[in-house]
Amino acid sequence: MNESQLHQHIYARSVGLGAGGSNEIIVGPGDDAAVIRSADGNLSLLTVDQLVEGRHFTSETDVNLIARKAIARSVSDIAAMGGEPSWALAAGVLPKDYQHSDELFDALSRWAKHWGCPLIGGDIATHSAADHPLTLSVTVGGTMNQGTMPVLRSGAQPGDQIYITGPLGDSFKSNHHLNFEPRIEVGQWAAKNNAHAMMDISDGLGRDSHRIAVASNARIEIDASKVPMNVGCKDWKQAISEGEDYELLIVLDSKTEIANAPFKLMGPIGTARACNPNEKPGSTIVDPGGVFHDAEQLGWDHD
Amino acid sequence: MNESQLHQHIYARSVGLGAGGSNEIIVGPGDDAAVIRSADGNLSLLTVDQLVEGRHFTSETDVNLIARKAIARSVSDIAAMGGEPSWALAAGVLPKDYQHSDELFDALSRWAKHWGCPLIGGDIATHSAADHPLTLSVTVGGTMNQGTMPVLRSGAQPGDQIYITGPLGDSFKSNHHLNFEPRIEVGQWAAKNNAHAMMDISDGLGRDSHRIAVASNARIEIDASKVPMNVGCKDWKQAISEGEDYELLIVLDSKTEIANAPFKLMGPIGTARACNPNEKPGSTIVDPGGVFHDAEQLGWDHD
Repeated sequence: MNESQLHQHIYARSVGLGAGGSNEIIVGPGDDAAVIRSADGNLSLLTVDQLVEGRHFTSETDVNLIARKAIARSVSDIAAMGGEPSWALAAGVLPKDYQHSDELFDALSRWAKHWGCPLIGGDIATHSAADHPLTLSVTVGGTMNQGTMPVLRSGAQPGDQIYITGPLGDSFKSNHHLNFEPRIEVGQWAAKNNAHAMMDISDGLGRDSHRIAVASNARIEIDASKVPMNVGCKDWKQAISEGEDYELLIVLDSKTEIANAPFKLMGPIGTARACNPNEKPGSTIVDPGGVFHDAEQLGWDHD
Repeated sequence: MNESQLHQHIYARSVGLGAGGSNEIIVGPGDDAAVIRSADGNLSLLTVDQLVEGRHFTSETDVNLIARKAIARSVSDIAAMGGEPSWALAAGVLPKDYQHSDELFDALSRWAKHWGCPLIGGDIATHSAADHPLTLSVTVGGTMNQGTMPVLRSGAQPGDQIYITGPLGDSFKSNHHLNFEPRIEVGQWAAKNNAHAMMDISDGLGRDSHRIAVASNARIEIDASKVPMNVGCKDWKQAISEGEDYELLIVLDSKTEIANAPFKLMGPIGTARACNPNEKPGSTIVDPGGVFHDAEQLGWDHD
């Protein structure tokens, strides 16, 4: 079972359930973060992400960058809802006799503070063997600024324009996946300026745009020739399928004035439209030669 | 660095820091759960715990019981603050080609619902090898009932009486560590009835009572002959040092009427007093022969 399947699986078991105490579940599994509403109407955003040695970083990766990525991935999920990071919890399973735990938790604490979500607790356990991979899980909670609502994956409307917050591709080789800046400010701007749908691009623009289209019951069409690429990225296919970009994919009302954004948005790279009769929701990539590709097949599932 | 050291380590870097957004950190690392206060005064409890194959369960443990323990440990932390569990997030790193992920996440979801904290999201990743241990991390959020405040480790006062919620010892062999019932109801009762300090006993009554004494800058004295033991527990030393009991250790105002508790409390098994001049805070166990033992040396550090 991969991550998407897991989310669908949990989701099927969670809908219609009020949370305990006086809280209400507004958004369960399947979006970038879950959303809870307290009795007095306050919204909380909640997300957890893991980092596993050998998968999300290597045994040579600098401890500071491991910590940075662990915090940044969860902060990026809060940004993708248009929220403000608020607190963090970090849990780690360390290889036996691991020598850098002090340095690692210092760095986790420092990066959590850096993005406004101080580390308020954690848990540590050790593996029974020294060759077991280092594993971190980071939970981040967030809030919404006054007067804004979380931007879900499910709100894309016909006529909406698709933007991204930076060039794509070559994230692994360039170490962008360790150095990326979670797009907190532009996410909050989008929540205030009629973004209808939003997510962060972790599994590639192809697959992630498909997820928005399906959640929104819409068709998305992306013009690959308009997708900005990083210097080391060899072609549109790499840009769209490699993943770990952590730029925001923003589906904006066509009337929004993007000149006011606190950050230069890139695009529009595509549009949303309604499904035709008998057409399934999904995303299409039109390559520079005019050939259509099923976006769902272009991406990477983290599992 | 073990778990206590980690908590102290993070704590030193977190004090005095407001959380992001409009939240304020009331309690940071080092208690059973962190406590956040939102702008309108609502308190949230937050805790994360991990479960690692080979350490907290074996490769033969039933998937349903692995899930139960993963949720129950975090729920027990909320209970130990006197709170109400509200939502849960679960993250898992699975061995390569793990066959039970569907069953595992079904069980996590079911146990989370069972204790009133539905699973609202998660993350899944796989190890590169089939012999890497299954690892779960569960974050649980909670609230306080109207008119009650979280019961910390730091509030024990001279004259307070020490109670526990069940017999101790033999948790591993008897599988109590997989089957225990988090003491949510009695924790909430304690928060309403002048409990001055509380925690759940995970590392043994000896070490955990020492933690309360140090956090409270007090001396605690426990009479080992009054500590109820489970049937398979061979002596007071095992009862006090083995750990994984997950009963609550409650430091109650001596005026509290325990006859009103919704659950039979066991004790008093000891008392709290002020430190004498030049005496360090800590806990003493008086064994059935009248010999005094430093409680800190009797316990198990999960690391």
